[in-house]
Amino acid sequence: MNYFFNNKGPFKISEILELLNLKNDSIDQNLLITDIKDLFDATNSNITFFHSKKYKDIASKTKASFCITTKNLKNELPKKCKPLIVENVLVCTSLITSKFYPESINDNYDSTCKNIKKSDLKDLVKYGNNVLIGENVTINQNCSIGHNTIIEKNVVIGKNCSIGSNTIIRNTLIKDNVKILDNCVIGKHGFGFFPNKNNNSRYPHIGAVIIEDNCEIGCGSTIDRGSMSNTVIGKNTYLDNQIHIAHNVRIGKNSIIAGQVGIAGSSIIGENVKIGGQAGISGHLKIGNNVEIGGGSGVIKNIPDNSKVMGYPAKNFREFLKANR
Amino acid sequence: MNYFFNNKGPFKISEILELLNLKNDSIDQNLLITDIKDLFDATNSNITFFHSKKYKDIASKTKASFCITTKNLKNELPKKCKPLIVENVLVCTSLITSKFYPESINDNYDSTCKNIKKSDLKDLVKYGNNVLIGENVTINQNCSIGHNTIIEKNVVIGKNCSIGSNTIIRNTLIKDNVKILDNCVIGKHGFGFFPNKNNNSRYPHIGAVIIEDNCEIGCGSTIDRGSMSNTVIGKNTYLDNQIHIAHNVRIGKNSIIAGQVGIAGSSIIGENVKIGGQAGISGHLKIGNNVEIGGGSGVIKNIPDNSKVMGYPAKNFREFLKANR
Amino acid sequence: MNYFFNNKGPFKISEILELLNLKNDSIDQNLLITDIKDLFDATNSNITFFHSKKYKDIASKTKASFCITTKNLKNELPKKCKPLIVENVLVCTSLITSKFYPESINDNYDSTCKNIKKSDLKDLVKYGNNVLIGENVTINQNCSIGHNTIIEKNVVIGKNCSIGSNTIIRNTLIKDNVKILDNCVIGKHGFGFFPNKNNNSRYPHIGAVIIEDNCEIGCGSTIDRGSMSNTVIGKNTYLDNQIHIAHNVRIGKNSIIAGQVGIAGSSIIGENVKIGGQAGISGHLKIGNNVEIGGGSGVIKNIPDNSKVMGYPAKNFREFLKANR
Repeated sequence: MNYFFNNKGPFKISEILELLNLKNDSIDQNLLITDIKDLFDATNSNITFFHSKKYKDIASKTKASFCITTKNLKNELPKKCKPLIVENVLVCTSLITSKFYPESINDNYDSTCKNIKKSDLKDLVKYGNNVLIGENVTINQNCSIGHNTIIEKNVVIGKNCSIGSNTIIRNTLIKDNVKILDNCVIGKHGFGFFPNKNNNSRYPHIGAVIIEDNCEIGCGSTIDRGSMSNTVIGKNTYLDNQIHIAHNVRIGKNSIIAGQVGIAGSSIIGENVKIGGQAGISGHLKIGNNVEIGGGSGVIKNIPDNSKVMGYPAKNFREFLKANR
Repeated sequence: MNYFFNNKGPFKISEILELLNLKNDSIDQNLLITDIKDLFDATNSNITFFHSKKYKDIASKTKASFCITTKNLKNELPKKCKPLIVENVLVCTSLITSKFYPESINDNYDSTCKNIKKSDLKDLVKYGNNVLIGENVTINQNCSIGHNTIIEKNVVIGKNCSIGSNTIIRNTLIKDNVKILDNCVIGKHGFGFFPNKNNNSRYPHIGAVIIEDNCEIGCGSTIDRGSMSNTVIGKNTYLDNQIHIAHNVRIGKNSIIAGQVGIAGSSIIGENVKIGGQAGISGHLKIGNNVEIGGGSGVIKNIPDNSKVMGYPAKNFREFLKANR
Repeated sequence: MNYFFNNKGPFKISEILELLNLKNDSIDQNLLITDIKDLFDATNSNITFFHSKKYKDIASKTKASFCITTKNLKNELPKKCKPLIVENVLVCTSLITSKFYPESINDNYDSTCKNIKKSDLKDLVKYGNNVLIGENVTINQNCSIGHNTIIEKNVVIGKNCSIGSNTIIRNTLIKDNVKILDNCVIGKHGFGFFPNKNNNSRYPHIGAVIIEDNCEIGCGSTIDRGSMSNTVIGKNTYLDNQIHIAHNVRIGKNSIIAGQVGIAGSSIIGENVKIGGQAGISGHLKIGNNVEIGGGSGVIKNIPDNSKVMGYPAKNFREFLKANR
């Protein structure tokens, strides 16, 4: 189930094949496809996609009935999963995702917003001047929302939360006792697109941002929602000011992240991780539990549990200090 | 005297002992304690705290009558200062500070704000659309405040100042001829808290931000107020865009700080210092006068006067260039 | 022609000489000077300036009739160009620029702004709550502007553009199909001033920001307008969140710049350049076409076409990885 975006499916497989410019007479053209999911989450009424050998283990166990993939990769799929061979897997996946979730592409300002004074929330929430609320917003008891803040469509806010002023939130699930400070932008689409000469094309972001209980998000931070999965900030994790968290990043609980840190797309950060100011973490990495990353570090490879690293590229903390005495 | 927070004291020492779960029958239980101060500033009606050997010289000269400290450190205190032995000095200091200054913990949006048109400042200040003013705000002649800007409670603005649009200020003392550009957040509490499994606890920030004459603060910058002392930007110091200045930082006069620089908590920057873009300075450091720090540097130790450094970790400028030819 | 600032000239050369405290009886005092331009763009009715040997080739071909310069440099000028010898070329250039363009110095909030509902644009543009529009703003068909956004004076927006919420724009020329996301500040003056003990003096910024067709600018980004020339973002170039682009920077088309990157003043970036997150580029550099710069890099010298660099200082990508194995 997608948290916030309406699934316009099911669609007949024939419609999907047409969109991909494919023909396949061996398939029952009336078969209904209910959703597009990743290899792991897909069920037998879903279509999935498989674009890199990195994922061949998961691919071999997918339950999807159809998979957008390439000639080279198709043999990794289980027999029950029919490969749909295309040239560019991600572009085709984007096309089909857009068909199921057409509202996920446009991130223009939310024109459904109205002043909170004119909404049902006006008696439930403590709010400042000029607060706007979009469609499909739920806010639980004992929350406050600062001046000029815009809660755009598709937001759930738990109990005892405090949202600062001049902040913008959409497509975000906020649990209890969360503080989000001023001037943040949370839940906008990530920096994901297909580069094309003179006219890039964006791919849809159908994920959400999930902020677990007791988190704090500092002033001027940006957290992008996920493309296919969600961007997650774990329970009791604190972010300082001016931090950027890209799409699909997951941060474990009880982590502490200092000012101006940036975490690139799809990296997974463990629990109880400490990251010093201005450190950067490249995309698609795995940072273990209890890791400490020194301020200013540039992390470009996975870091195992319980490590302490520093430098650019980040290496063992003692080695870094020794090499730079 | 605290600039902005109301001191709810004095309190009997018995009340303080109770809060710390201590008993001490040798103390006159009715003795009045007027304030909590650091080792240096405390007078004989104050309580202070001492948590690290680093401060033993100042501790030996403190004028406070009581000091929250540990068994190991208590012997460094002068005879007139009674040690109150606890397990975690900072947590206990936070408790007592919160008792004296309960309003310093909550940094939710300021609900005392009202439109400047309804305030006494409306004829004194040139202002844009939707400007909000909180309680205890003073603005002197010939100032302008941009659209959607929120001057929350506890702000003093001197003469001839220009505040941009979409900016938020609280607990800040701004002197004359200062320019603060758009989208800044100034005076919020710093990134200071006690990490606890599943539920960190914040400590109070009773300091202010002080911005001296003729300064300029660039767009999208954040300056946090001090925890016990103040965060200070010296006279005629210019900050570029997207800079983060953490709590208790002090920057000397005539300094120039380029875009995206971050200075971590409690570091002291001298006069006439030049810091290149994206440089980072770790916490609790001392950077001398007339220092130049190259763009992108990561400074992790003290820098003496008149030095020119670059690199990560930052070292002598010429050595850096030689090593990287 | 200056895009946005009114030229208060022409002025008699006698007025200019007076402002510079110069006397020169060999010049026809009534000669009219129409504008101040850089060495390359100046025509024979203009005054120009020449302050560094770096520019001697262009200086030798300038068409300007007068040039503010130094004793040491004057002989590089062509015979038709009369040198005006001063001690500090840039301070004097600033003085003369301010005379021609007095409105370019003050970047206080734009008090000409009014609610879009009261402007002629109300039927042409789709807009959110509390949108403000200043003087001399043109917006073409099929554009949307988000809540609380301020289009200050001197802005042109092309067709099919989407501007987010809480964004501030001035002195900017935006072409067609451009997306600017939330919380950006675009077109403010750059970080350019003459350091003076206790009282720096700003120099005027008479340039614009130009954002070509199909660009996207991420949340929380700042793009400063040029001082003498323009700051340019090339066609179909995408910027991620929290990026800072300083004055006079020019970025070629089809480039991709990841989060938290900073580009210092006057650097020229080629076409089809990819810059990883948090990378920084020093000022006055030339980065070639098809260059890739790794995340976290610090670039401090020119990079030729088709190079792939990483590190701080940035060097050949393979060398960086080899040296850091």
